[in-house]
Amino acid sequence: MTDAVIEGSEVDLTHPFVKQMVIQLRALDSYGTYDTWSDEKVLDPLILTKERKREIPVVGDPDETVIARLKAYYNALATTIELQCGLMAVPVVNLTHEGFGRAFISVGKLIVLDKTLRDVHRFGFPSLEKLIQDSEKLINKAADMVTTYREVAKL
Amino acid sequence: MTDAVIEGSEVDLTHPFVKQMVIQLRALDSYGTYDTWSDEKVLDPLILTKERKREIPVVGDPDETVIARLKAYYNALATTIELQCGLMAVPVVNLTHEGFGRAFISVGKLIVLDKTLRDVHRFGFPSLEKLIQDSEKLINKAADMVTTYREVAKL
Repeated sequence: MTDAVIEGSEVDLTHPFVKQMVIQLRALDSYGTYDTWSDEKVLDPLILTKERKREIPVVGDPDETVIARLKAYYNALATTIELQCGLMAVPVVNLTHEGFGRAFISVGKLIVLDKTLRDVHRFGFPSLEKLIQDSEKLINKAADMVTTYREVAKL
Repeated sequence: MTDAVIEGSEVDLTHPFVKQMVIQLRALDSYGTYDTWSDEKVLDPLILTKERKREIPVVGDPDETVIARLKAYYNALATTIELQCGLMAVPVVNLTHEGFGRAFISVGKLIVLDKTLRDVHRFGFPSLEKLIQDSEKLINKAADMVTTYREVAKL
């Protein structure tokens, strides 16, 4: 991997979703690798600039670390949705060995987020801003669904 | 495993769910093991009488064959639900290596069936009658949910 792309001074590490993302990444770090790392360093591998993406083969199996990152992302989304709507949100990530699959988040009997996954070995975002933007879109859509179909979300 | 417990003459192999179950079991039989087997023989390992259950250790990892059987069961449920409500039903089985996990079936954005799985290495039913009974309960409940929340099921 190339040099770190997240520079502490340039990006908003205080954004609630970014903070949640760091919490979830650290939670899934079973070997304690991140214990001595700064938040910037923990987040850094999620940012796939064009240069970084070019270095990753197009076809490949996702390793444990990438899968943990992907799961941390859906955990962070679920936690944020839960905080917004006040109802438990449950994330499910279903992957084949080849890195294809589906991710969902359910609230009660309502599926508030449903995503087809592919090329998980290349999971990441072009920038931290884009990560925040994408996630906020998904979270708002999920929260809207809970509002519209609250009866199902409370089942 | 003890002698076969399903005797062709005693049980109802023409029941639609049983027929669907056979179709789904054969569909997941990637090595063609079942090609020369009768329907009775294909269904037989699903029936865990008390005697058979006693032979299986309480703690154990589910093997590929048991997992295929479990998936076939949820595929059969989903297909039957789909036939009843006229909307696509998607099964998802999410398992850890230790045989714990969740299975659900969604129709649109509605979760019509949601089950916590455990001890999957002991997956089975005390009798074919019980399999039919249990499955019909789940299918009817799912169909009722689609009727009640059709708007969400059509999303």
